[in-house]
Amino acid sequence: MTTDLGAQDLTALLDSARQDYSELAGRGLKLDLTRGKPSPDQLDLADDLLTLPGAQIFKAADGTDTRNYGGLNGLLELRQIFADLLNVPVGQLLAAGNSSLELMHDAFVQALLSKLPGAESRWVDQGPIKFLAPVPGYDRHFSICERFGIEMIPVPMTETGPDMAVVSRLVAEDASIKGIWCIPKYSNPTGVTYSDETVRQLAEMPTAAPDFRIFWDNAYAVHHLTEERVEVADVLGLATAAGNADRVFVFGSTSKITLAGAGVGFFGASEANIKWWLGNLGKRSIGPDKINQLRHATFLGSAEGVLAHMDKHRAVIAPKFEATLRILAEQLGGTGLGTWTEPKGGYFITLEVPAGTASAIVARAAEIGVVLTPAGATHPLGQDPDDSIIRIAPTFPSQSDLEAAVYALTTCVKLVGYEQRQK
Amino acid sequence: MTTDLGAQDLTALLDSARQDYSELAGRGLKLDLTRGKPSPDQLDLADDLLTLPGAQIFKAADGTDTRNYGGLNGLLELRQIFADLLNVPVGQLLAAGNSSLELMHDAFVQALLSKLPGAESRWVDQGPIKFLAPVPGYDRHFSICERFGIEMIPVPMTETGPDMAVVSRLVAEDASIKGIWCIPKYSNPTGVTYSDETVRQLAEMPTAAPDFRIFWDNAYAVHHLTEERVEVADVLGLATAAGNADRVFVFGSTSKITLAGAGVGFFGASEANIKWWLGNLGKRSIGPDKINQLRHATFLGSAEGVLAHMDKHRAVIAPKFEATLRILAEQLGGTGLGTWTEPKGGYFITLEVPAGTASAIVARAAEIGVVLTPAGATHPLGQDPDDSIIRIAPTFPSQSDLEAAVYALTTCVKLVGYEQRQK
Repeated sequence: MTTDLGAQDLTALLDSARQDYSELAGRGLKLDLTRGKPSPDQLDLADDLLTLPGAQIFKAADGTDTRNYGGLNGLLELRQIFADLLNVPVGQLLAAGNSSLELMHDAFVQALLSKLPGAESRWVDQGPIKFLAPVPGYDRHFSICERFGIEMIPVPMTETGPDMAVVSRLVAEDASIKGIWCIPKYSNPTGVTYSDETVRQLAEMPTAAPDFRIFWDNAYAVHHLTEERVEVADVLGLATAAGNADRVFVFGSTSKITLAGAGVGFFGASEANIKWWLGNLGKRSIGPDKINQLRHATFLGSAEGVLAHMDKHRAVIAPKFEATLRILAEQLGGTGLGTWTEPKGGYFITLEVPAGTASAIVARAAEIGVVLTPAGATHPLGQDPDDSIIRIAPTFPSQSDLEAAVYALTTCVKLVGYEQRQK
Repeated sequence: MTTDLGAQDLTALLDSARQDYSELAGRGLKLDLTRGKPSPDQLDLADDLLTLPGAQIFKAADGTDTRNYGGLNGLLELRQIFADLLNVPVGQLLAAGNSSLELMHDAFVQALLSKLPGAESRWVDQGPIKFLAPVPGYDRHFSICERFGIEMIPVPMTETGPDMAVVSRLVAEDASIKGIWCIPKYSNPTGVTYSDETVRQLAEMPTAAPDFRIFWDNAYAVHHLTEERVEVADVLGLATAAGNADRVFVFGSTSKITLAGAGVGFFGASEANIKWWLGNLGKRSIGPDKINQLRHATFLGSAEGVLAHMDKHRAVIAPKFEATLRILAEQLGGTGLGTWTEPKGGYFITLEVPAGTASAIVARAAEIGVVLTPAGATHPLGQDPDDSIIRIAPTFPSQSDLEAAVYALTTCVKLVGYEQRQK
C-alpha cells in the first residue's frame, strides 16, 4: 500500500497504536464480534411466543388439529403471511422446521440423491459438479458444498450483486456448474442488494446445465436498518416468465425475526420443484411442528405485522450499526487502512483492510480477548486470496461491549497496518 | 383353507355376512382405522405444552439462552430424562427436531454421502446395498429404503423378534447387507418385544459388512397397555461389550408421549458414531429448537414423570384395545377366519386372515366407508406375498367409532372369507 506519510510520522503512528494495544491488553477484555446472532434484547421482543398458542388453542384456521401428525406443506395461515414477504405464491411456499440452513442442505441432499426436474440424472451420478460462490459470502453456504465435495468457483461481488458478466459466461459454457449461492438483499457480509438488472439476468441467462438452480437465500428480506425498505426483484416470477420456472429455490426463515433457535424456515419454488420436494419429504417426515407455526401465525398476524415487528428490531440494532460506523470513521477515516460497507439492512458490516493483513489483525485481536470471525471465512474453503476481508457482526454484544470491541479492532487494524507499511 | 362346515352351513353363514354387510352399507359410515395417531383425548393430556415454557422463561439449567442459536446436541436436561428410558448414556444421546423418522431418514442420507465409522467407503459408492426388513413391519421404514433404491430382504418375525437363524446367516455371508430395521418393543404392527436372546444375538453376531448398522427404532419404549412395563435388553451396551459399539443406531421420540406433530426426536449411538453424526449435522444446522426441548423438560420433569404421563395415555387407549379384541373374539372366534395379536403395548393389533383375502377385505371395507391401512403395507414395496396381514390402529377413533369400525371389519372378513371357502 502506498502512502505519503514520512518515516517519522509513520513511526509516531505505530508507536501510538502499540501504546493503545498495550493498554487494551491490560484490560482483560472478553468480547465477541463473530456470529450474526440476535441479542437478548431482540429475543425479548418475541417473549409472547413463550406462552403461545395458549391453553387449549390448537386449531388451524381450516379446523386442523395442529397437535397431531400431518400437513407436510406447513400451516396455511403462516405461509400466507410469508408468501408476500418472500415473493412466492402461497401454493408454492412450504413452512418447515426451525432453520432455512437445513432446507438448503437438504436441497443438496435431494438433488444429489433424487433426480431434479429437468435433470438428466441425480447429481451424485454426474461426476464432479460445481457451484458459483459470490465472494465475499456466507461461510455456512460454502461448508455445505465442501461437505459434499462440490467445487466452488468464486465470483466477485459488486455493488449490484455478483459480477454478471462472469456468471453468465461461466454458466453458459460449463454444464457441470449446477447452481449459484445468492443472498439477494442486504447480502452477508457486504449488505449489497441485487439490482433489478442482476436479478433479471439471473432469471433469464442461458445455462449449459438443464438442472441449474439459483439458491436464493432471502435471509434478510425484512431486516431493514433504515426508514427505506429496500426491495429486491421477484426472481421466481422473472424466471417463470422467461421459461425458467424450475431454476429458482427460494429460502427464508423467521430465525432473525422471532427466536433464532425456535423459528420457522420456508422453501419456495416452481410447482414442479415443490412436487419433487414433497415427494421426497414425504419419505422423511409426517409433517413439521405445526404448533410452532400456529404460535408464529398468532404472534405475527400478517405481513404488516412482521414489518411492524422488524421496526422494533431496528430500534434495538440500528444504534449498534451506527456506533460501529462512527468508530470505524473516527479511528480509520483518512488512514488508508480500511474501507467498509454502510448497509441499509441485514446483520453485517464488511471491513476491507490492506491485502495481507486480515489474518494478522484477527490474531492480534484474539490475543487481547476480542474474538472476530476468522479471516477467510467469507470465502470458499476459508481462503481469502487477498487476506483483506473482515466481517463485523454488531448485533449480539451490548452497546458498550460492541463499542469496546470495535475500538479494539480498529486499534489492531492500525497496529498491523502501520507495521506492514514500515516493512 | 380347509373347513369342516357343510355346504349348507357355509351358505347360511355367507348369507348372514352378506346381510350384515348390506346393512352396514346403508349406514353411510365414514370411519378410519389406518394410521397410528394419538386421539384428541391423548393430546389433551399435554395441554400444558401450549403455554410452556412461560413468560420470560428461557434459560437452560446451565444458563444457556435457549432462544438463540447453538447447542447442536440438544438440551441436556431433556437428554437426561430420556437417557435412562432409551438405555443410552446421556453423553451419547442427542435431542433433535420433531420426528425420529427424520433422524432415521437422515441416518441413511449421511451413510450414503459420508463414510460411516468402520466403512470402507460411502454407501453411495458401494454399488447395490441391502437391508433386512423383518415382516410384518412398518411401512415408513420400508419407504425410506425404497426411496434410496436399497433392496429389502424380508425376514420373518417370530414371538421373540426377527428369526435370528435367518438374520445371522444372511449378515454373515453377504457384505452388501448394511443393516436391519428393528422395532424392539411392542413392535409395529405385531406388538412383539424382542427377547433378551434375540437382542444379544443382534449385538454379537458376526457380520460380513464392517459398516453394518442396527436401526433400533425404540418408538414404543414407554407405551405400555398393561400394568406390566415390559423391558427390552440394552442393545447398545451389549454391542459395546461385544466390541461392536458402532453397530447400533438408537432412535426414539416423544411424538406419542406429548404432541404427535410437535414433539422431540432422539438419536443415540457410540461415541464414534455421535462424533460422525455431529460433524455432518454441523453443516446442516445451528442447533435444534431448544425452546421446545425446554418446554418438554419442564412438562415431563423426569423419567418417572414420563412413566406417570404414559399411565394417563394407557387409561385412554387400553379400553380401545380391549374393545377391539373383544369384538374380534365375538365375531371371528371359532370361525377359522382370523387370528390376532394381543399386544402389551404400542399402537397396533395385527389381524391375520386367510391367505389371499386381505386385499379383498380392505377393498370391501372401503366400499362401505371404513378405511383400513392398505393390505401389504406391512411388507417391503407394499407386497405381502400371502395377502394375509391387516394392521388395526385402534387409538385415534372415538370409542364408538372404533367399535363400529372393528365390527364392520369383522363383517368384511366373514364376507370375503366365506366367499373364498365357497369357491
